[in-house]
Amino acid sequence: MAEFDYIRWLRTQVRSTDRVEVGIGDDCAVVRIPEERVLITTDMLMDGVHFRLSEAGPRRVGRKALAVNLSDIAAMAGRPVAAVVSLALPRPGAGKLAEELLRGMQPLADEFATAIVGGDTNAWPGPLVISITVIGEPGPAGPVLRSGARPGDWLLVTGPLGGSRGGKEFDFTPRIQEARTLRLLCDIHAMIDLSDGLAGDLGHLCTESGVGAVLSAERIPIAAAATGDRLQRALTDGEDFELALAVSPEDGRMLIEQQPVPDVTLVHVGEFVAERGMWIEEGAKRRPLEARGYVHAFE
Amino acid sequence: MAEFDYIRWLRTQVRSTDRVEVGIGDDCAVVRIPEERVLITTDMLMDGVHFRLSEAGPRRVGRKALAVNLSDIAAMAGRPVAAVVSLALPRPGAGKLAEELLRGMQPLADEFATAIVGGDTNAWPGPLVISITVIGEPGPAGPVLRSGARPGDWLLVTGPLGGSRGGKEFDFTPRIQEARTLRLLCDIHAMIDLSDGLAGDLGHLCTESGVGAVLSAERIPIAAAATGDRLQRALTDGEDFELALAVSPEDGRMLIEQQPVPDVTLVHVGEFVAERGMWIEEGAKRRPLEARGYVHAFE
Repeated sequence: MAEFDYIRWLRTQVRSTDRVEVGIGDDCAVVRIPEERVLITTDMLMDGVHFRLSEAGPRRVGRKALAVNLSDIAAMAGRPVAAVVSLALPRPGAGKLAEELLRGMQPLADEFATAIVGGDTNAWPGPLVISITVIGEPGPAGPVLRSGARPGDWLLVTGPLGGSRGGKEFDFTPRIQEARTLRLLCDIHAMIDLSDGLAGDLGHLCTESGVGAVLSAERIPIAAAATGDRLQRALTDGEDFELALAVSPEDGRMLIEQQPVPDVTLVHVGEFVAERGMWIEEGAKRRPLEARGYVHAFE
Repeated sequence: MAEFDYIRWLRTQVRSTDRVEVGIGDDCAVVRIPEERVLITTDMLMDGVHFRLSEAGPRRVGRKALAVNLSDIAAMAGRPVAAVVSLALPRPGAGKLAEELLRGMQPLADEFATAIVGGDTNAWPGPLVISITVIGEPGPAGPVLRSGARPGDWLLVTGPLGGSRGGKEFDFTPRIQEARTLRLLCDIHAMIDLSDGLAGDLGHLCTESGVGAVLSAERIPIAAAATGDRLQRALTDGEDFELALAVSPEDGRMLIEQQPVPDVTLVHVGEFVAERGMWIEEGAKRRPLEARGYVHAFE
């Protein structure tokens, strides 16, 4: 199969939405976003770095490559609208691999009304690289940033953390609906999706907001899949793709009491404080928490 | 240098525009596009496939990776607004390479008021991969598609073709301004940018429009850099990044006579016809033209 045969096939496979004026097959796609503000996010996943194609298989990899982008849209309490998918496909078998990746992606795209409107499909002798960009729109109350957490705010998370490797990292549900529901119910001061681990991503939230945070070790929900030093794994494993959010104590109490999001248990895991830094309390003891999560070394 | 150091550095380097509400450093960027319709295009460039990093150097490669996307926006007569840049960087030296790529990109981004608002920066043992997505907005008259060419229309190109390898493929000017000027002056029925070569891209234009085309060999402007079988090279070399457009004969005559675009000579190279297929006329002889340009083989 050659590039243009694949593109022809692709045009028969992807589903459009009422937002798409021009989809795959022109120089650009044209998408309607009446909100006048566009969210844009991108993630690049490489075989051997972010996944092992031979272990996970192409469908799970394809799904994940889209899901991590949808999770970033969720972290702004936004709604995804369209995606473009670029592939560097290893030869031989590039055409078949492209098909399988798309088959993994399409059900998730459908579930969240995200139209695949374009991309760039290439073959080469190197490993698989997938780069997806998703555009979306903020909710009616505007995007939720990382920078709005205030001292005294409660820190909530949307689910258990740790042990995602090989499992939840592939089949997680991006918290699009959950974030939008929460945003309708209260003023979310700041939010982030947990890709690098709670310790790492909370560090980003604190840095951007100019505040610190104190976690309560006993309260952190730990996934059943996290074994060994379970607390440490919940803090640093990463790839949970749950949301961490800062809300006022009043809203926090209301959310914890009402648990308004179906199938999700909101947990109060700490507070934001004026002093910069991060700490974790276990019983009466408070120790500094390092903002370590997964970090690419460039040298 | 680690990923987050690079992101900190990047935030000090990129220039914002009045369209950017949230730039690098949150889960998504937020960009204002008041037109309510968003153009989106993406290209992935791989070392050894689309360029040779060791020969071209990182600055020219960085510039090209952005320029090919801007050329797609030009082909819709649109205006670029923002870009996200994802990198798979070979180790060692990944941090320095990322810097140089950005230094190659930034002047072009500035020239076309395109804010770099995000991306994903990774290091790995593989070759350099750059994936850029650009969003933009259509001009006031809407986007120009590939699908509107009509029998009888003239086919114009914006400049000489062929021999771009190693030269113009890196330093071409995306025809953003030219396309917008032309769109203000007349109704462009269809347009495409010439990345795969005139023969290949004219094939796309004909297929999408459901028409055929006849080229006039004597009229095709051939770049000085195209040597050997010069006509063949003008037809199939690719990477010219000029525009090919379909206009009514009346508009075609007006444009050729007035030459309204500074520094660009519009050339009338053929006509669209009702019969599907492509032909080229040399003197009194007409022969079929194969729609061959650069095509990735997937097997």
